[in-house]
Amino acid sequence: MLHLCENPHFRHSCLMFLVWAFQLVGLTSGFGLNSGLNQSLTYIWPLPYELTSGNETLTVNPALSLSVIGHGGNFRILREGFRRYKRIIFKFSSGISVSKNSRRIRSLYDISELRIIVKSGSDELKLGVDESYTLFVDKTEGKSVVWETIIEASTIYGALRGLETFSQLCAFDYTTKSVQISKAPWYIKDKPRFAYRGLLLDTSRHHFPVDVIKSIIESMSYAKLNVLHWHIIDTDAFPLEVPAYPKLWNGAYSKWERYTVEDASRIVRFAKTRGIHVMAEVDVPGHAESWGAGYPDLWPNTYCREPLDVTKNFTFDLISGILSEIREIFPFELFHLGGDEVNTDCWNKTPHVKQWLDENKMKPKDAYQYFVLKAQEIAISKNWTPVNWEETFNAFAKSLNPQTVVHNWLGPGVCLKAVEKGFKCIFSNQRVWYLDHLDVSWDEVYYAEPLEGISNVSKQELVIGGEVCMWGETVDTSNVQQTIWPRAAAAAERLWSTEEALSAANLTVLHRLQYFRCLLNRRGVQAAPVLNYYARQPPSGSGSCYWQ
Amino acid sequence: MLHLCENPHFRHSCLMFLVWAFQLVGLTSGFGLNSGLNQSLTYIWPLPYELTSGNETLTVNPALSLSVIGHGGNFRILREGFRRYKRIIFKFSSGISVSKNSRRIRSLYDISELRIIVKSGSDELKLGVDESYTLFVDKTEGKSVVWETIIEASTIYGALRGLETFSQLCAFDYTTKSVQISKAPWYIKDKPRFAYRGLLLDTSRHHFPVDVIKSIIESMSYAKLNVLHWHIIDTDAFPLEVPAYPKLWNGAYSKWERYTVEDASRIVRFAKTRGIHVMAEVDVPGHAESWGAGYPDLWPNTYCREPLDVTKNFTFDLISGILSEIREIFPFELFHLGGDEVNTDCWNKTPHVKQWLDENKMKPKDAYQYFVLKAQEIAISKNWTPVNWEETFNAFAKSLNPQTVVHNWLGPGVCLKAVEKGFKCIFSNQRVWYLDHLDVSWDEVYYAEPLEGISNVSKQELVIGGEVCMWGETVDTSNVQQTIWPRAAAAAERLWSTEEALSAANLTVLHRLQYFRCLLNRRGVQAAPVLNYYARQPPSGSGSCYWQ
Repeated sequence: MLHLCENPHFRHSCLMFLVWAFQLVGLTSGFGLNSGLNQSLTYIWPLPYELTSGNETLTVNPALSLSVIGHGGNFRILREGFRRYKRIIFKFSSGISVSKNSRRIRSLYDISELRIIVKSGSDELKLGVDESYTLFVDKTEGKSVVWETIIEASTIYGALRGLETFSQLCAFDYTTKSVQISKAPWYIKDKPRFAYRGLLLDTSRHHFPVDVIKSIIESMSYAKLNVLHWHIIDTDAFPLEVPAYPKLWNGAYSKWERYTVEDASRIVRFAKTRGIHVMAEVDVPGHAESWGAGYPDLWPNTYCREPLDVTKNFTFDLISGILSEIREIFPFELFHLGGDEVNTDCWNKTPHVKQWLDENKMKPKDAYQYFVLKAQEIAISKNWTPVNWEETFNAFAKSLNPQTVVHNWLGPGVCLKAVEKGFKCIFSNQRVWYLDHLDVSWDEVYYAEPLEGISNVSKQELVIGGEVCMWGETVDTSNVQQTIWPRAAAAAERLWSTEEALSAANLTVLHRLQYFRCLLNRRGVQAAPVLNYYARQPPSGSGSCYWQ
Repeated sequence: MLHLCENPHFRHSCLMFLVWAFQLVGLTSGFGLNSGLNQSLTYIWPLPYELTSGNETLTVNPALSLSVIGHGGNFRILREGFRRYKRIIFKFSSGISVSKNSRRIRSLYDISELRIIVKSGSDELKLGVDESYTLFVDKTEGKSVVWETIIEASTIYGALRGLETFSQLCAFDYTTKSVQISKAPWYIKDKPRFAYRGLLLDTSRHHFPVDVIKSIIESMSYAKLNVLHWHIIDTDAFPLEVPAYPKLWNGAYSKWERYTVEDASRIVRFAKTRGIHVMAEVDVPGHAESWGAGYPDLWPNTYCREPLDVTKNFTFDLISGILSEIREIFPFELFHLGGDEVNTDCWNKTPHVKQWLDENKMKPKDAYQYFVLKAQEIAISKNWTPVNWEETFNAFAKSLNPQTVVHNWLGPGVCLKAVEKGFKCIFSNQRVWYLDHLDVSWDEVYYAEPLEGISNVSKQELVIGGEVCMWGETVDTSNVQQTIWPRAAAAAERLWSTEEALSAANLTVLHRLQYFRCLLNRRGVQAAPVLNYYARQPPSGSGSCYWQ
């Protein structure tokens, strides 16, 4: 059975059979008191590195208190994180009368305190920050049975991941009307497989209000994704305020569809409290027509508006100016310079550009390289590590700054080539990880492997992770979350969990993903049914969230 | 032009032309610093009863304070409402540094205080509660220009409606980074056209978590809708806890897809803080198969499970038991007993039911009437006014309790017939106000008229309002809000604003609705593009929210 489900040709039907079999076991009648849950499964998404569980069921006190130990114990991020997860865990029991006295009657509950131990006294959020944690829900030694719940982590970001896992162990029991942890004692040791686990959001094709971006970041933290790749600007619109060049946001769709400097900073601060990096992208020299709405000099000519005019100092002064200003907003060490889909026809067709090319003895492709390298230099001078879409690597790998992180998208096998040449790489093969490709099913996303074909361990380490891309042409506030979820969760588990863990849990993956999708729904995230043939389609008929 | 747009055959193309014309005026280039806004329009949805405006632009202090006067001034609902709207109004300026000192430097702003005057000392929320208010944003008499903002209302619910309108006058200005009110002074006198402005939510075909229901209620308040018709139970699932009959929620889809008594109470309390009634529905005798999951005796037989068994006392004891228990939860005076789509074949085919029919000299249709009237008696004995879907009126109007509110759905003209016979009526003609009919466009919803054909004023008063219905077969958490909005807003304006106001603003309606849809998006509500041919479709390509 395992082998059948690993064969890509039979995978979907095999998995469909399995979900049917699970439902058959779970269902007691057409109506389903017990439907959906299989007690032998571990409903944690993504799967932890290592775990053991038992067979006791514990109750959790709605007045759960936090006790913090270690250098990292007093960070606001940690304390707010605890309060946030407490709201999530106990939202279903709010209004239940017993909770009123629960602070006094601690002995009624098995678990009344969560202890968090954080070693590091730093809250710096860098790529590769230690996100590991251990979570114990365990008995203490002694005469009477006392249960202790402890999260141990090197950093507050590891502790946040542990809180997420803890929240997933807690479930509201409708019979006793209490929050319970089943299958205790738990011993979970966890850490991510990849340091970079990203989601691209495109705010140029459609504008997303700040609150919507914050909800997306919040939902990312539920799946332990940790990089929001903010594709801020593109051909269609320039929504970001750049105070030194105030006319740039003339390129916004309207006077309301904009981000102030303060908005952008709020987004970055919010993301940090969830342990999420924000990587900004300023895509040059293509995908930049909107820049010229305020500064038409950036267009080669009025009728042919991109790539940006390669001949003018103003173009590079402006790039440098933008990067200087936004460096203050985006502390993350990676910065995306785009560099994709550059059609140089416009340069060739514009007399002054053509003349400049001739004078400098350049073909358009040389000018493309010239532009990209110059932009890289600017980014590096601002203490950023440049990321480029793979076209720059495909076109002039030898000249590319060796720090460059190659961002794959066109197809498979690119990270293999990039790491062979010593570059770092991010996997986003569009055939499987472009969320705007609605015909890609959850399992195609799930079984995509960033390290495919890379056997050398030192080369594997150059693949820093992967990213699912939510391009914005057909998503706006109305449907962005249901296009992202649940498929982004499939990638999230691929990026967090070890291949061994995934392989061992292969038969249960669909069932667990359906459960996680419903968890997202319970938390207010508009994750779509898992089994729809096209992503984000409505449910095909009445039914339980756990079947659809 | 006005006449062209009133002709149903040309309405859509006419309105499309108008939106194009508006965009042409608004656009300065492909990128749109000024696109979308037409200063001559009043961007308040739904349109107030009466208003005048000026041409001054005022700034609003982010430290806006509340001063309350009158018997109703101290209700928590009012103070929380003010805080909620303050968050909405100033969310875009949070993080802007000037706000830090704004409490001290009140003189920098034109408006630093909102005064609310509420006459009534009662917070009772009954059908027809006075929701009127006046809102002044006006200069005070005296030497220097001082601006006063005052909401006057009879009840706190009127004041909440005034706060909503006030919040819609406030807009964040990206140039000055401050919240402004343009076109002041404002004088708005407002009241609803209909007392009952409803939205049906069906939690049987798909389960909606409590938080999702609360977001829906919250979004209703933005459009001044005021009744959540909660279609709790149906054939597919029985998610509600009824403590006296604990096996009823065996009919839930799963052990998590349920509502406790506390959940239901929380929903009702939450709705009250938004001035929204919750009308519960327990649909009998059809649409009730799920009841038998716990109590199979309610099924005529194992193979033919609805309508509920009309012969047994247990059936009516159980209905009475349910209604007794949920009467505590739902204080609203209307209670919906369903009564629709009753196919009595099952009774005829079940020997013991057939025998009972014969013994009682009843045809199945008589038994249907017997069942409905008996259920009505039970509801009336609990001090509820019964509401029934129109089939009961269509089948036996003469026997129907005269208190009955007839709920139209099958087609047009039913309210006319119902009020002729002296019944109250709710308009929900499925051809225009069923939101699950995805091919009904926003303007078909908008131009549907609950009083169509009813010319007699005393008869018109029997139409208490209307309701858009969000049946749940193809909506779940992932897509419910985008199926409800923006079309529910079209009905909301029809139900709130006078025909005169709507007629005067006819040419601007689409433009204003697009603006309101974007307002919903800004507030985090997943309202879909207005102009999609089928409801809830994704945007067809890149672009501004204000065009799509």
